[in-house]
Amino acid sequence: MRENLLVVKVGGNILDDEEKLRVFLQSFHRISGNKVLVHGGGKIATMIADQMGYKTKMIEGRRITDEAMLRIVTMTYGGLLNKKLASELIALGTQAVGISGLDGKLIKAHKRPKQNGIDFGLVGDVDEVDTGLIEALINNGFTPVIAPLTNDDQGQILNTNADTMANEIAVGLTSSYQVNLIYAFELPGVMADILDPQSLIRKIDKQNFGQLKKDKKVQDGMIPKLDNAFQAISNGVSKVSIAHFASIGQLADEDFHEYTVIQ
Amino acid sequence: MRENLLVVKVGGNILDDEEKLRVFLQSFHRISGNKVLVHGGGKIATMIADQMGYKTKMIEGRRITDEAMLRIVTMTYGGLLNKKLASELIALGTQAVGISGLDGKLIKAHKRPKQNGIDFGLVGDVDEVDTGLIEALINNGFTPVIAPLTNDDQGQILNTNADTMANEIAVGLTSSYQVNLIYAFELPGVMADILDPQSLIRKIDKQNFGQLKKDKKVQDGMIPKLDNAFQAISNGVSKVSIAHFASIGQLADEDFHEYTVIQ
Repeated sequence: MRENLLVVKVGGNILDDEEKLRVFLQSFHRISGNKVLVHGGGKIATMIADQMGYKTKMIEGRRITDEAMLRIVTMTYGGLLNKKLASELIALGTQAVGISGLDGKLIKAHKRPKQNGIDFGLVGDVDEVDTGLIEALINNGFTPVIAPLTNDDQGQILNTNADTMANEIAVGLTSSYQVNLIYAFELPGVMADILDPQSLIRKIDKQNFGQLKKDKKVQDGMIPKLDNAFQAISNGVSKVSIAHFASIGQLADEDFHEYTVIQ
Repeated sequence: MRENLLVVKVGGNILDDEEKLRVFLQSFHRISGNKVLVHGGGKIATMIADQMGYKTKMIEGRRITDEAMLRIVTMTYGGLLNKKLASELIALGTQAVGISGLDGKLIKAHKRPKQNGIDFGLVGDVDEVDTGLIEALINNGFTPVIAPLTNDDQGQILNTNADTMANEIAVGLTSSYQVNLIYAFELPGVMADILDPQSLIRKIDKQNFGQLKKDKKVQDGMIPKLDNAFQAISNGVSKVSIAHFASIGQLADEDFHEYTVIQ
């Protein structure tokens, strides 16, 4: 029987807030088994870009990554955030190792081709995942903390969506582990009405997903996240959840769970 | 008999120049056995600081690292340079993994106490080296590329001298490997007269070091580098060399070597 492994994705809204981040890291630290953390950080990259006098260009919610912006995301994701997360986890007692998707050939990517005439710039679409580095780290008692950067076979660094990376890594690890993927979230899970704390949707499957979209109970950025989640499930990930950042260290497989499970 | 391992240190003057860096990385890539790369990057951190509107303060050639400067060196060393080096090595075919001295508890440090009333700020002095992460990477076919950042036991990130890190790591690895340490340099080695290409000093030992200093044939920044080198030798490193960045992949143990050996 394969060992369990938990892949956790954390994004900019939590990374950006010292108190939330502290609580999240304690929660992540409490996970007792094999674990991997994948982080984003777009909001902070935008702040650093402002400080450096670069204007961030977004189209359809996605960052246009020119050469200057690539330097900024490489610094912010690979340096500032990745080392901060690793350092704080180490202080808590988790043997974190900060890497990125390009290290040890973890992820091979290519520059995204123009879409409907839009060139997103130095943005990576994933071709291949080789989880050898992650497995070597885990087998030696380390916890990988992964920044959303990849490269192509010419060594060009590419800015890569962290949700996508978390999914691809989770799927890649299913050949060696029984993998559970959690998106750390600011709310208890997917809410039918974000103003109503009682409106948590505990289960989303392909049956109710269509209806939830139709009723506008899930919309905007949540839709691609859920599309990703369904894809992870069909590619062998055992369970995908969207859960509050404070509770990821203590999710139980109960019927009365307080988070969203995607099936 | 223990396996050989080569620790190479590369600094800002080479990192800063695209053509030199390309040649250096090809040279490093050609090393066939176990290898570790430790990099600096102070010159580039100063450039990034300028871009962000921070003035770099130096005292006695050493950077004063306040909170803002720490963010800049964390971004520059841990992100921009570390990922660039790893990515370009991977494109050449070396399975590089970019980490820093804080990852996997590689180096435990403490903030340097005030010296003669000077507070250098968030600068790390090394307490302990645990080479477990480096060995795990090497045993699995990876080549560690290490940025000069450490942390203390509270998770405070500390800016740490890359020459010192290279030395400490080389000494730490002597318990498992026969270690050879090379400082990649812009000149063929230590020159008695930098204007005279024939003035390479092929061997520096404790006997001639005093005389070389007295004759001002070695001075300034070279003196602490050589002090470090002698310390590495007395702590078990088999050989320390200062060699041209283009030739580190092909240094031979010959009598007529074209680089400086410290004994």
